[in-house]
Amino acid sequence: MQLKRIVEEYHKGDVSLATVASHSSLQLLHGAKKEGLRTILIVKEDRLKFYRNFNHLIDEFIIVNEWKEILNRETQEYLISKNAIVIPHGSFVEYIGAHSIVNDFKVPVFGSRKILLWESEQDKKMELLEKAGIKIPKRFNSPDEVDRPVIVKLGGAKGGRGYFIATSSDEVKRGLEKLGLKDRNYIIQEYVIGVPAYFHIFNSKIMNRIEITGMDIRYESNVDGLRRLPPRILDEIGVMPSFTVIGNIPMVLRESLLIKVYEYAENFVNATKKFVGEELVGPFCLESIVKDDGEIVVFEFSGRIVAGTNIYVNGSPYSYYYWDEPMSVGRRIAREIKIAHQRGMLTDIIN
Amino acid sequence: MQLKRIVEEYHKGDVSLATVASHSSLQLLHGAKKEGLRTILIVKEDRLKFYRNFNHLIDEFIIVNEWKEILNRETQEYLISKNAIVIPHGSFVEYIGAHSIVNDFKVPVFGSRKILLWESEQDKKMELLEKAGIKIPKRFNSPDEVDRPVIVKLGGAKGGRGYFIATSSDEVKRGLEKLGLKDRNYIIQEYVIGVPAYFHIFNSKIMNRIEITGMDIRYESNVDGLRRLPPRILDEIGVMPSFTVIGNIPMVLRESLLIKVYEYAENFVNATKKFVGEELVGPFCLESIVKDDGEIVVFEFSGRIVAGTNIYVNGSPYSYYYWDEPMSVGRRIAREIKIAHQRGMLTDIIN
Amino acid sequence: MQLKRIVEEYHKGDVSLATVASHSSLQLLHGAKKEGLRTILIVKEDRLKFYRNFNHLIDEFIIVNEWKEILNRETQEYLISKNAIVIPHGSFVEYIGAHSIVNDFKVPVFGSRKILLWESEQDKKMELLEKAGIKIPKRFNSPDEVDRPVIVKLGGAKGGRGYFIATSSDEVKRGLEKLGLKDRNYIIQEYVIGVPAYFHIFNSKIMNRIEITGMDIRYESNVDGLRRLPPRILDEIGVMPSFTVIGNIPMVLRESLLIKVYEYAENFVNATKKFVGEELVGPFCLESIVKDDGEIVVFEFSGRIVAGTNIYVNGSPYSYYYWDEPMSVGRRIAREIKIAHQRGMLTDIIN
Repeated sequence: MQLKRIVEEYHKGDVSLATVASHSSLQLLHGAKKEGLRTILIVKEDRLKFYRNFNHLIDEFIIVNEWKEILNRETQEYLISKNAIVIPHGSFVEYIGAHSIVNDFKVPVFGSRKILLWESEQDKKMELLEKAGIKIPKRFNSPDEVDRPVIVKLGGAKGGRGYFIATSSDEVKRGLEKLGLKDRNYIIQEYVIGVPAYFHIFNSKIMNRIEITGMDIRYESNVDGLRRLPPRILDEIGVMPSFTVIGNIPMVLRESLLIKVYEYAENFVNATKKFVGEELVGPFCLESIVKDDGEIVVFEFSGRIVAGTNIYVNGSPYSYYYWDEPMSVGRRIAREIKIAHQRGMLTDIIN
Repeated sequence: MQLKRIVEEYHKGDVSLATVASHSSLQLLHGAKKEGLRTILIVKEDRLKFYRNFNHLIDEFIIVNEWKEILNRETQEYLISKNAIVIPHGSFVEYIGAHSIVNDFKVPVFGSRKILLWESEQDKKMELLEKAGIKIPKRFNSPDEVDRPVIVKLGGAKGGRGYFIATSSDEVKRGLEKLGLKDRNYIIQEYVIGVPAYFHIFNSKIMNRIEITGMDIRYESNVDGLRRLPPRILDEIGVMPSFTVIGNIPMVLRESLLIKVYEYAENFVNATKKFVGEELVGPFCLESIVKDDGEIVVFEFSGRIVAGTNIYVNGSPYSYYYWDEPMSVGRRIAREIKIAHQRGMLTDIIN
Repeated sequence: MQLKRIVEEYHKGDVSLATVASHSSLQLLHGAKKEGLRTILIVKEDRLKFYRNFNHLIDEFIIVNEWKEILNRETQEYLISKNAIVIPHGSFVEYIGAHSIVNDFKVPVFGSRKILLWESEQDKKMELLEKAGIKIPKRFNSPDEVDRPVIVKLGGAKGGRGYFIATSSDEVKRGLEKLGLKDRNYIIQEYVIGVPAYFHIFNSKIMNRIEITGMDIRYESNVDGLRRLPPRILDEIGVMPSFTVIGNIPMVLRESLLIKVYEYAENFVNATKKFVGEELVGPFCLESIVKDDGEIVVFEFSGRIVAGTNIYVNGSPYSYYYWDEPMSVGRRIAREIKIAHQRGMLTDIIN
């Protein structure tokens, strides 16, 4: 296998951490510098000016006109020549596509590569959670089955854009028509009544343990703004909630519920070993609703770093239970890479 | 008094901080280790696996099958033999009961023991706040008096489970019937219009000062999730809000309002001296609604550490005004114990 | 010009940071002490007791009976004799008035003085944003023009008190009548549908760069409490939302949207140079709604430190991208002053 040979070469020199200019790239670059890694930022021309403000975190820019240029042979070869390990994140997947990352991108990637495929297809995504023994929302296979409030979601990491709520078969159909959806890469899920909570987990191969690195609440436009309007006005203007993720708000969880989160996290990692054929390494996220009886229902997962971790650049309330120093997920990744590199174990954390 | 003799023995050796595996135990253990104290975690068998992830924070586990075993003579004697100071928290009170802690538990407890009784009875709770000259919500003595939105609350530290909102006498009666409440340990409070804010205070006997250690907003299921649904859908599904505390969100308060919080905190400590017969030492919480005219109405208190402090494992925006180092409430407790131990003052902070 | 002579004198000795006891004064004092500056707190008699809790952050109190005493010749001369640089904040502007600060207050002020005038008049405020090429909400010049949900806002830094929502001309008129408004210092703005986000910026003359120092969500009473009530109850009680700022909640922004924030920030600083005749130096805030298509609409600005920065006493998720140490905005100001003082550049940052 070629990847193995590449990584062996990496062990002969220093490694660089490379990522794409969006999502959590500042956190990743910052974390890498804290761990003494070289950093490369792949940036589109029109974003260069902004990222130059953070020159001190970036050893090298790779400037592209279109994101797809990342797949060019020259770009890939150049990255490999720099001993680059690429950290995939939601925007990277959105820009390049999970299929291209799996099939056409030969540069070493931190964490699991195959999981990105499972993540990007709503069917496989929910299947994997179910196989892991994790409680998920009821699924409706067709608009006709809908008999309660549901949320309709599109595939891929698009940050919640296009999602909508409906309470009847007709409403679901109208919503899908409006979006002009032809393919079947959407999912109709029961709208679970409870509060959203996004659990950030890190599976460390080097330390052989699972860490809870933090958690967040997504801040979504316009749903989190609409609720500031009185019901009368909401009815008058007739705007339906939309779910574009704009930012993230920190939270901590009732300690007794952490036990279940840990259990889910372990089960999920085991399920990836068994069903994805590649253990999920590094950061992932279980996107959940916590019901008022304390039950945790996971309605989605992300098989890589999530943007909610950007809250915890100086460590989270949870990271301090494991580390006596500030440890963002970006830094945690860099730490994992650094130690794996020192110990000749890069193949364990790279795919 | 026996406690005094026990504590005198403690002064001859090192002390251990002991707590029950739930609520804020990770924070307490972490804080104790930062201060160099020995730590003991009392854990139920089925939670042991989870807490083993934090082995590095725990010097010793005491494993029980049922929480009530904490009251066994052997457990108590063992704890005393280890010079243990137990930190009571909401789950500890829920598992063992305030009456048992006061009457049957002879191990030294940090902070006030008697206050836990006042906290667990809704009548005495509100009475103490009122006696402290703190503004509280209007109280309705019977469902028949209800003439405005009210919230009906059950006694004890149950994290908001079972609370409900009602706007009429009939609704209150129906709600109580549904819960099957026979005893009178509930309270009907005016639903004050404003925003919730939970103020964490620490009364230090060692430094002879009151500190604001932080504040939070509780994140409650399903009430904080329901508001994401359009009014039309909420009406359709007819789900009433419930108030199970799932987690906590950080906040800071308008600086000019801090003055009132401080005043309330001082008044409350003085009231405990006068009416409880035991000064409230260490952490407590004033659970409040802040109205749009800036008035602060306190609808509850907790006479011990609250789980909202779990946000501030690395210090809060307020703790840094007092300390030039990260100071969680867990660590603050450990610091207080450490200094009291060094100065032979343990009797001042233990009950 | 007299200010220049005063500042030249300052360069011969040490400087003091002075501020008024409210808003963000604890943060400012804390930051100043971290940078080794002398601190002066101007405090009203009735707040002295509270601020004495933070004696360790305050080298000197100037006690007044009425805030207007700050304008007394003796107070001003005393401040100058102490080489004081005053940090203006929202409460300072509210207590003294922007006009008095510009015309009657001769003590050196950090940042821009004239901008406070623009900030305090709703017309000029929106004009400046517009001139900066920043997207702002549609403005209605008279109640009669109103054809959609609007928010009516009063001038000055009053923390949102008196703001109200309306959906028709009649409602706007009734609301204004109720407030008894005679003058025209209010503004009728389109109520933009999206989520609020408050971006904290710092324009550094010393380092010749713009920093994003953090961001927050305001926590407003009663609007953020009302949404916890079911629509049926809200309709029954008929309370309209009010917008008194009670506190602040931390947030981070989707990284790709930061680019626009930076662009707005630069444009805004440039607009102050051009139109205010005085470059905005130091901290300011762009108060925004982020729509579900990612567009950022700025509905207000603050030309000085905002209270939302109080969240980040130990640094924000953004400050750590610039600084390898905890950097609040209070400390950032002190750092700017310290370096300017060392380099003989105080005139660049003082007005």
